[in-house]
Amino acid sequence: MPSLDAAIEQLAAFNDDPDAGGITREVYTPTYRAALDRVAEWMGEAGLETRLDAVGNLFGRWAGTEDAPRVLTGSHVDTTLSAGRYDGVLGVLGAIDAVRALRADGFAPRRPIEVVAWAGEEPRFGTGCVGSRAAAGVLARADLDALVDRDGISMAAALQSAGFDPDRVADAAIDPAGVHALVELHIEQGIVLEDAGEPLGVVTAIAAPHDFRLTFRGAATHAGATPMHLRRDALAGAAEAMVALERITRESPSGTTVGTVGVVRALPGAINVVPGTVELDVDVRDTDSESRERVVAGIEAAAREIAARRRLELDLTPIVEDVPVACDPRVVEAAAAAADALDLPYRRMTSGAYHDAMIMGARVPIGMIFVPSRGGVSHHPDEYTAPGDLARGVQVLAGTLERLAA
Amino acid sequence: MPSLDAAIEQLAAFNDDPDAGGITREVYTPTYRAALDRVAEWMGEAGLETRLDAVGNLFGRWAGTEDAPRVLTGSHVDTTLSAGRYDGVLGVLGAIDAVRALRADGFAPRRPIEVVAWAGEEPRFGTGCVGSRAAAGVLARADLDALVDRDGISMAAALQSAGFDPDRVADAAIDPAGVHALVELHIEQGIVLEDAGEPLGVVTAIAAPHDFRLTFRGAATHAGATPMHLRRDALAGAAEAMVALERITRESPSGTTVGTVGVVRALPGAINVVPGTVELDVDVRDTDSESRERVVAGIEAAAREIAARRRLELDLTPIVEDVPVACDPRVVEAAAAAADALDLPYRRMTSGAYHDAMIMGARVPIGMIFVPSRGGVSHHPDEYTAPGDLARGVQVLAGTLERLAA
Repeated sequence: MPSLDAAIEQLAAFNDDPDAGGITREVYTPTYRAALDRVAEWMGEAGLETRLDAVGNLFGRWAGTEDAPRVLTGSHVDTTLSAGRYDGVLGVLGAIDAVRALRADGFAPRRPIEVVAWAGEEPRFGTGCVGSRAAAGVLARADLDALVDRDGISMAAALQSAGFDPDRVADAAIDPAGVHALVELHIEQGIVLEDAGEPLGVVTAIAAPHDFRLTFRGAATHAGATPMHLRRDALAGAAEAMVALERITRESPSGTTVGTVGVVRALPGAINVVPGTVELDVDVRDTDSESRERVVAGIEAAAREIAARRRLELDLTPIVEDVPVACDPRVVEAAAAAADALDLPYRRMTSGAYHDAMIMGARVPIGMIFVPSRGGVSHHPDEYTAPGDLARGVQVLAGTLERLAA
Repeated sequence: MPSLDAAIEQLAAFNDDPDAGGITREVYTPTYRAALDRVAEWMGEAGLETRLDAVGNLFGRWAGTEDAPRVLTGSHVDTTLSAGRYDGVLGVLGAIDAVRALRADGFAPRRPIEVVAWAGEEPRFGTGCVGSRAAAGVLARADLDALVDRDGISMAAALQSAGFDPDRVADAAIDPAGVHALVELHIEQGIVLEDAGEPLGVVTAIAAPHDFRLTFRGAATHAGATPMHLRRDALAGAAEAMVALERITRESPSGTTVGTVGVVRALPGAINVVPGTVELDVDVRDTDSESRERVVAGIEAAAREIAARRRLELDLTPIVEDVPVACDPRVVEAAAAAADALDLPYRRMTSGAYHDAMIMGARVPIGMIFVPSRGGVSHHPDEYTAPGDLARGVQVLAGTLERLAA
């Protein structure tokens, strides 16, 4: 592998839609496979022994001096549509770079170290982290038919066309007893570090989303001919619900709850028609499940009160409900000690975004290291982390691996 | 022309998209022209002398016993996409039916009566009432290039392909001195009559829209990774503005102001991204210009305060601003007297929807007659007015024409 910066640059060229300005490299496409082959080549150059599991997770193994439970580190190299070049990629290429640095220092790990590129962290099939879910043993054969991408292609069909056998999904499950710890280096994708002027984050817990759809149904009547008091305006109700959602989330005593309406659809969508149907896709996250669920319940109660008062019908459709994960104190302290040893200031923080580490965290001890994202921008061509910040993240990852594998 | 009900049924068959469930018959299409030819045929059968003007407005003339200023009556036979069968159509076919009834009664008008089917009342080119705007003399040659439909076809190009010369648009202007009055029969498109259990409306004023777009711009950041206090959420700001809009409109002292957000677009539109840009298309209407403008100013002030407080940028883009029109007392009283003579109860009411009559009302004395719309539904396949209500509307229109043309 060339230098980390050059490797990130080279991987960015594996792109199905360069004209859109960003990088499009969805899991199980030929372009994704070509990028993964390049990563495997670089793993080999770093002395790692590579293997692909049954769903396309790529592992590169550095044998330990003992056959002890291994230390996993990695992230993903698939992207959303027209994305940036750092999300996921840093955690994989940075891990290879850390291994290379440790080798150069003459370090010989007692426990095996495995670098991993998880398949499909981005939600091509609606649900994200499909590779780590398979490794955590929570993805069943039936799920592979149920998970479908925007073109109607199931994950089972995509696996098959990429040369994998969907019936072997259970083979990808990892025995937790064989894993000592997992640590993932990632860009923050938020502005907490930038806002605080800090170069490094040591993650103590990962928030998990509870996503659902609120559908308000009223009457699509003429915007001119329907007096205000005779309206059943689904969008006016939804607007009131969005204001309530923000207030309820801000008042959450945990202080770490976030609540977002990222998608709104108002039908029929004409300037002279009162909207009759409005869908809001809601995402609520916290590292503290209880606070999160209290906020979700508060939003639902507010929406029901608003709908009843306005003579609207309300449906609530579940989308996803993941479990927040606390990072393992040993991993957290290894990362903190690595930063201290390098004299780097760091911030203990929670991760609002979810990652493969969260999925694996239900089974094995995990931790994460964050580097700053300029402007908090992610999933966008403008995603950027300065080379100095990337290098610091890799140094701390190397120090963390050194401590965990010793 | 067959019976009114059968004629409405027959006209509904001129439809470019029957599979969509409703009627799609946009102005200047071959299907529209075929429907207009059928209407001209029916006008001829009713003894009316037909002519098309320079923009495709169809007139059918019943000569008066004197060459006095004429009485105009009519509406339009173009539709929105997947629309109902009564909007506009009733005002044209009902006028032919009224003429037929007056003839059968042996009535001989002193003033000429002209039935008209205005071209393009529905906003195929963004702006509605293009035919009546040309007749009112407010549509310039340059407008025909600026008005463009959703496929990028200008009104000038559409006119040309329908066999008209866009350079002759000024020929369509009607000399107001030659018009004694105009009366338009139309479905209410609202639920005021149904809600009050009344079969008939005599319109005293027509509200006009002031439409504009509010664009809120914040930062499209990660929904998980951005704490609530670091967000610049364009949709949360837009939601607050929508709540303010409803409150300000309800508090308008005229009691007839309506305010609607019919279109909302939130970008990028992903469940895990805080919306960075939100557009709201706003429609405010009143029969009282001063009240309407006070509400528009109030909405703008509220939106600016909300945007400033939330560190959002705000743009306001004008869309359309029409002038409300008071109906002429002579037309109103003629319609009221016609209803009284038939022993039909009626409601004096304002029209929240705009119509060709509103455009012509800036030049000539106008009035309108409303019949109930079931559930207030319009611009939708479910649009419905009961045959008895249609017949009552035609009877009152005939009585009104009898009085105005005498």
